[in-house]
Amino acid sequence: MIRVFGHLAPDTDSTGSAVIWAWYLSQVQDTPAVPVLLGTPNTEAGFVLQRWNVAQPEIIADVAAGEPVVIVDTNNPAELPPSINNADIRAIIDHHKLVGGLETKGPIDITLRPLACTATLMFDLMGADAEKMPREIKGLMLSCILSDTLEFRSPTTTPHDRAVAEMLAADLGIVVQDYAAEMFAAKSDVSQFSDAELLRMDSKTFDVEGKKFRVSVLETTAPQVVLDRKDSLMATMQTVAAEDGADQVLLFVIDILREEATVLVPNDLVKSLVEASFGAKVSGDLVVLPGIMSRKKQIIPNLKL
Amino acid sequence: MIRVFGHLAPDTDSTGSAVIWAWYLSQVQDTPAVPVLLGTPNTEAGFVLQRWNVAQPEIIADVAAGEPVVIVDTNNPAELPPSINNADIRAIIDHHKLVGGLETKGPIDITLRPLACTATLMFDLMGADAEKMPREIKGLMLSCILSDTLEFRSPTTTPHDRAVAEMLAADLGIVVQDYAAEMFAAKSDVSQFSDAELLRMDSKTFDVEGKKFRVSVLETTAPQVVLDRKDSLMATMQTVAAEDGADQVLLFVIDILREEATVLVPNDLVKSLVEASFGAKVSGDLVVLPGIMSRKKQIIPNLKL
Repeated sequence: MIRVFGHLAPDTDSTGSAVIWAWYLSQVQDTPAVPVLLGTPNTEAGFVLQRWNVAQPEIIADVAAGEPVVIVDTNNPAELPPSINNADIRAIIDHHKLVGGLETKGPIDITLRPLACTATLMFDLMGADAEKMPREIKGLMLSCILSDTLEFRSPTTTPHDRAVAEMLAADLGIVVQDYAAEMFAAKSDVSQFSDAELLRMDSKTFDVEGKKFRVSVLETTAPQVVLDRKDSLMATMQTVAAEDGADQVLLFVIDILREEATVLVPNDLVKSLVEASFGAKVSGDLVVLPGIMSRKKQIIPNLKL
Repeated sequence: MIRVFGHLAPDTDSTGSAVIWAWYLSQVQDTPAVPVLLGTPNTEAGFVLQRWNVAQPEIIADVAAGEPVVIVDTNNPAELPPSINNADIRAIIDHHKLVGGLETKGPIDITLRPLACTATLMFDLMGADAEKMPREIKGLMLSCILSDTLEFRSPTTTPHDRAVAEMLAADLGIVVQDYAAEMFAAKSDVSQFSDAELLRMDSKTFDVEGKKFRVSVLETTAPQVVLDRKDSLMATMQTVAAEDGADQVLLFVIDILREEATVLVPNDLVKSLVEASFGAKVSGDLVVLPGIMSRKKQIIPNLKL
């Protein structure tokens, strides 16, 4: 039995893509496979599973040596189970940059494409077999694309991501605008999370000129709810950074509807980083970056000190 | 202008695939591209270029920072230009195991498949555009597949590699058996090479339980020509290992027609490695391993001390 999983801190694409590919392997390719998660899915992913009546996959802490696995939506060993390089990796399907660090024991299927969403790539890999997807798998695929593209607003969106999503929505009789609003409302409900949980929820670590930054984003249609907590969030940044071995946590609150990011600025390090990276002038402990929505395409490539 | 290249010490697949993909990018995708080589092509690759009247690509020593490149037939930074991680890697097309170590600045097209040959994968990636290949590009593609599969004898051969090659041969009016014999004769003519050149010609470095082995293969239809030089080859192994920072050079002389490998056994380290890895009993300085033809599939996965 092959276990299919995405990255730690599973979002909609990591959760949905694992379910989609496990369906494809077991139902179309006659290769027994089961989706699993590397943590609790975020509130949007949880909503999506419920909406399409898909059971939440089992959460696992690690993989066994020699266990057959398929990795989706990441190729970064830091976002994968600790023993990943001892597993029998059968395939990797992803849309992120190649990070380096994963190894396979033999030649396997690896497909990385510069698309907004892993699920779009899966649609392509399935070819004519995509027609066999049952309603709930199509629903997950649509949800993944709407999530990763922020309803086609993110600059990572390609015409192909959009075309696949619109075809699926038409097929399912789903009004994209209404459904995306429901998904984003689920994602925006962060009341149940502690400050530390918020800072780690959608977070990746990057090195900038010798310093280690945990770059966290919160995509929301209700940014004020988060910004009202800015004092305690900024205080917690120091704890989280220390616990996670980072020099600094950066928090980008992405306003999906206004298409802008608000960055919390707790100290001079973050102030100079934001000014150098985005040409912004910072006064006070918040700065708005108009048009900034994508960590992958707009934040990470620009970070400098 | 994108430079397309394969690995150091270019063989037929690394040379041919670079030419094939540069043709595809520039002629079909309207993306200016040129093939280059990271060294002198081996005698088989040289024969193939001449046979199809394709000019030998320029040989380069390194890539410039930010230069756009496409990597074919390897994903191993040790087999690529020293500055590869500073280049603008646009795509990777390969059929080897994922080694780890390459990084890209953003998400790009990466396709690795467990096929015998990179050129077969290129045929698939082209889709319907493969029909547009001119005669010399089809000829190179056929040559790459016959080379990497040792005319379908290697256990790496998939039915798909064979089907593509047979379709191309029929299209070109080429008798596979005759043409493969010409290619292998070109590869078997090693008279012009020094012992050190022979040991480095088709060679990859691997770690086995903390020791570094340079694993060299020589595919030939005339193994006796090589084995007649065994004493000087074994003496030269020590020099080559020292110069290249390896603990030991292993030389597998692959008899393409008899489908077996002969290993040179210069010392007790190699003796115990061959006995442990292949269950063979070694007496003397040569040992024959029946059926062993593929470094990727049969040699590397079995190496142990």
